[in-house]
Amino acid sequence: MNKTELIAQILKKRSFLCVGLDTDLEKIPTHLQQLPDAVFQFNKSIIDATAAYTVAFKPNTAFYESEGTGGWESLEKTITYIKKHYPEIMVIADAKRGDIGNTSRRYAKAFFEQLQADALTVAPYMGFDSVQPFLGFDDKWVVLLGLTSNSGSADFQQLKLENGHFLYEEVVSKAIGWAGSHQLMFVTGATKPEMIARIRSLAPDHFFLVPGVGAQGGDLNAVAEAGLNTEVGILVNASRSILYASSTVDFAEAAATEAQKLQQEMESIMIQKALLK
Amino acid sequence: MNKTELIAQILKKRSFLCVGLDTDLEKIPTHLQQLPDAVFQFNKSIIDATAAYTVAFKPNTAFYESEGTGGWESLEKTITYIKKHYPEIMVIADAKRGDIGNTSRRYAKAFFEQLQADALTVAPYMGFDSVQPFLGFDDKWVVLLGLTSNSGSADFQQLKLENGHFLYEEVVSKAIGWAGSHQLMFVTGATKPEMIARIRSLAPDHFFLVPGVGAQGGDLNAVAEAGLNTEVGILVNASRSILYASSTVDFAEAAATEAQKLQQEMESIMIQKALLK
Repeated sequence: MNKTELIAQILKKRSFLCVGLDTDLEKIPTHLQQLPDAVFQFNKSIIDATAAYTVAFKPNTAFYESEGTGGWESLEKTITYIKKHYPEIMVIADAKRGDIGNTSRRYAKAFFEQLQADALTVAPYMGFDSVQPFLGFDDKWVVLLGLTSNSGSADFQQLKLENGHFLYEEVVSKAIGWAGSHQLMFVTGATKPEMIARIRSLAPDHFFLVPGVGAQGGDLNAVAEAGLNTEVGILVNASRSILYASSTVDFAEAAATEAQKLQQEMESIMIQKALLK
Repeated sequence: MNKTELIAQILKKRSFLCVGLDTDLEKIPTHLQQLPDAVFQFNKSIIDATAAYTVAFKPNTAFYESEGTGGWESLEKTITYIKKHYPEIMVIADAKRGDIGNTSRRYAKAFFEQLQADALTVAPYMGFDSVQPFLGFDDKWVVLLGLTSNSGSADFQQLKLENGHFLYEEVVSKAIGWAGSHQLMFVTGATKPEMIARIRSLAPDHFFLVPGVGAQGGDLNAVAEAGLNTEVGILVNASRSILYASSTVDFAEAAATEAQKLQQEMESIMIQKALLK
């Protein structure tokens, strides 16, 4: 998926919502838990229920790997299902990978060719040659960790360097020299809108993937104020608040309601910012 | 596996070798490539051939994930095989994971419970609460990225902070406050022995996992000089130089010869340093 298609979809759906498919077998409704491949059955219902309100789905690989080979299979089936039924929706594999060059090339193969994801989250600690192998794919995206939404982001990301930059700013500044806004996004945690604004000033054209709205406490309006650019430029993720909106047979309807609520808030914000009519 | 058992094994085998199982379907001998689960068949032969000389096996997950569900199954079978036939050998899953707390907990489940690895490599960028969920398992280890062997380690790890430390030093200094040397190791790349010495001065008791000897050009003697402590304290990894020592039917014998050569060099070094008689 290229940047033009992504923006077109945002304007059409009047939404910049990303739904995080962090599917936890222990949290899905009990009537599903006995089914063969309950995780995929749950995802399928969530996808169908929320597709009208969302421009991206973001499965976090941890939730699949923890179920072993069967979990990996659920992940493959989930992405295949999205690609078949909703080809306009971006699939972001939230895997936070990154390794030496010849190894990152294998991860690129795993996620872009084998799993057919459109985008992959990548950790920056190992530097350019760990990120570069992910950049050689047409219409595939690297979503580099800039500033994360958790409290541990203070431990290293928010340390000040000798040159006066915070580490997260240095990561963004260096990385925009590695790839343009057509293939690189940044993770910018919703819990720190003032830092999102700093990152926006460093990277005016790049999309940001913003986790942390909902269960983690981030505020959508503050995020939008700090992160929006003239092309919208943000994808805001919600996971638990949508997936587990209800734990009974009406879980899919409840998820749709929650996703629609966020879409409507996003629509209002975009209208207010004259990004939509 | 606990620290006492690890050290006992090092002294018994007179080796601190870790064999990296970065098995690339395209590089394994052609006579194996047609077999069902060629990756596992290759690993099995390498494991049997090198077990006498090695104290740890380190499969890098990228090489398995890139083969999809079948690859994940090869990884499971490989670890199960090691645990069954060589229970004294440490299994380090080289996955470089790390995510927000509830997600890291899933990765911990994936690698420590589901795959039964003894240790997992973890990326530090997201800070304490991304590492902490991996620390709650008896006799399981976190191997935190400190200084990696690739050129990109200069991009962020080797930046100087306002407090005068390099980022990799800050990572090590902070992390030794998170966990003792019985459950935390550091990755310290073989290509920078002078930096390994700095890390050793910060973390005198922790084990280091040292990749980069062999194909990446690191020097074993220099690494040992910089990294050894009174309990040996280093595991030196070699992958490609052992796995692909020969590309024909004698690949396992060639791998054994290469592993034995490294073991003998390690034995000499340990004798010279009075760590062995």
